[in-house]
Amino acid sequence: MCEFISETAAVADDCVLGWNVIVEDEARLGSGCRIGHGVVIHTGTVIGDNVTIEANAVIGRQPRSGASSRRKAASQPPLEIGGNVIIGACTVLYAGTRIGNEAVIGDLASVREECVIGESVIVGRCVTVECNTVIGAGTRIQTGAYITGDVTIEEDVFIGPEACTANDRKILAKEKTYKGPTIKKGAAIGTNATLLPGVTIGEGALVGAGSVVTRDVPPQETYVGVPARPIQRSK
Amino acid sequence: MCEFISETAAVADDCVLGWNVIVEDEARLGSGCRIGHGVVIHTGTVIGDNVTIEANAVIGRQPRSGASSRRKAASQPPLEIGGNVIIGACTVLYAGTRIGNEAVIGDLASVREECVIGESVIVGRCVTVECNTVIGAGTRIQTGAYITGDVTIEEDVFIGPEACTANDRKILAKEKTYKGPTIKKGAAIGTNATLLPGVTIGEGALVGAGSVVTRDVPPQETYVGVPARPIQRSK
Amino acid sequence: MCEFISETAAVADDCVLGWNVIVEDEARLGSGCRIGHGVVIHTGTVIGDNVTIEANAVIGRQPRSGASSRRKAASQPPLEIGGNVIIGACTVLYAGTRIGNEAVIGDLASVREECVIGESVIVGRCVTVECNTVIGAGTRIQTGAYITGDVTIEEDVFIGPEACTANDRKILAKEKTYKGPTIKKGAAIGTNATLLPGVTIGEGALVGAGSVVTRDVPPQETYVGVPARPIQRSK
Repeated sequence: MCEFISETAAVADDCVLGWNVIVEDEARLGSGCRIGHGVVIHTGTVIGDNVTIEANAVIGRQPRSGASSRRKAASQPPLEIGGNVIIGACTVLYAGTRIGNEAVIGDLASVREECVIGESVIVGRCVTVECNTVIGAGTRIQTGAYITGDVTIEEDVFIGPEACTANDRKILAKEKTYKGPTIKKGAAIGTNATLLPGVTIGEGALVGAGSVVTRDVPPQETYVGVPARPIQRSK
Repeated sequence: MCEFISETAAVADDCVLGWNVIVEDEARLGSGCRIGHGVVIHTGTVIGDNVTIEANAVIGRQPRSGASSRRKAASQPPLEIGGNVIIGACTVLYAGTRIGNEAVIGDLASVREECVIGESVIVGRCVTVECNTVIGAGTRIQTGAYITGDVTIEEDVFIGPEACTANDRKILAKEKTYKGPTIKKGAAIGTNATLLPGVTIGEGALVGAGSVVTRDVPPQETYVGVPARPIQRSK
Repeated sequence: MCEFISETAAVADDCVLGWNVIVEDEARLGSGCRIGHGVVIHTGTVIGDNVTIEANAVIGRQPRSGASSRRKAASQPPLEIGGNVIIGACTVLYAGTRIGNEAVIGDLASVREECVIGESVIVGRCVTVECNTVIGAGTRIQTGAYITGDVTIEEDVFIGPEACTANDRKILAKEKTYKGPTIKKGAAIGTNATLLPGVTIGEGALVGAGSVVTRDVPPQETYVGVPARPIQRSK
């Protein structure tokens, strides 16, 4: 065996750890966790009961910014992961974020700092969630979707594969004010749709696949096209 | 050296294994394989001769579903990988799938359970192939394309970078019947195009870059735009 | 500790290496580098001073091509990484490429062979940069963007999230001549836009989110839509 468990980490006795698992200082693992081979758990990460993490995932890393980064990363408190969460292989999860009970994070996904991921949320494989975003309980984000920073997504939203969101309205400007879309309860965004900065997608609204949404979509309405326009909803 | 090879695994004598390679129970590696550092080979995986796997790949993991997952994952038979296959770094390949001889899987790609990947197929870097999909021999899927579940792709198809496919026609409905696109022999899908659920792309047909395909494309025709419409094919 | 440092590698005394780090033959690490757990540094890689690499990254791998690959990979000279570069977790960087000082490479990104990445460039998370591409100093490529091979991107360009580029004008043809877009100094490409092969985006030009660019965009102009057309630039 070649595990590397810090003496100051607290790992429940009934956890099953793979080979080459690394648990840094003061990390805590609840009862019944299964940690895959080669997983790295960074300093202070708090993991609930019965959490599964697949191989080679990187859990709880601190953000870093370069000399040219527009937003400077601040040191973050540890990542907190709720109970019964399932985390895929080769994922990268940041410190400063909370992940609710029963959530699922797909392989190769990343979630940055200062996010709140609600209970039973699905963050699909290869999804990125940027910093300072809130995702409501029961929301399902499909493979490869891009959730930018400074976004609010309410409960029970569906975001299709490869759909994406923007938060930078004046991309040529040096002075930045970031504002992502707001997606209300029960709305659904189609495959590969694009939501522009600051738009609101109303409750129960539907955005068609491949649409580009440049203005607000009212509740219960369906918008499609480039730019997206209202259509009669099919039954 | 810090390898972890199960006593019940069968690794051919002439394989070259990197440092920190993990081979779980009953996995089998054919003659002449080269396995990169940190690669994880899960239980029972069957690997043909002369297969190359780059560093930190995760090979043959079982699917898992959460409490909120719509499709519940069943335990799968082991992954089977044919001869002369090349697999990139940080890939995630699932049990329950077969990969044909001479196939290439790019870095950071993932292929889920119950798929059949034909001979000489290229699954580009960062591509996802979801479950229960069949890809015919000689098909080339470029970087970042998204192949949803329940898709049939025939032989010698070209799928451009970031192109994507949908399989869920009623994304607001609770009752689901999934049906992905069918892409016939020799068809080509342009960069960042979107194919809606259930459409058929005919033999030798061409879909332009950025198009959104909402209905069937006849054989040998070229469709472009949002929604995609026929145009005269340029020579 | 379970490090694997080749006797022919040269690692500066003040580097901090994580657990399970692998440094192959003749790699060189400058002063003050911080290398995360499980990082693999391949043969001959040259790393400048004060470089940070996060966990499970794969640095300096050689390209490989399969029997069915259209472009055959040549053996490459080692990867060169400048000073103060920051490299994310689970990244895959190739030999044959140079990365300038102060550049930032996001988690899960990959950069292939024969590229030149300028000083202070940001290659966002999950970005792919294909082979033989040049990226000018100060350019920022956002999450999930796709930079194809044979592309020239000048200085201080902004490429939005999930934007993508094509380099293969005749995707049905067997004989290939690849030519990617050229993006001039200070231009900006919106979220999920698509640039077709060979187009030139002029200095300071702006391409709207979700647009499909099929012909050249003149300097300082703004193009939007599918296909992209000029509009009056908003202030």
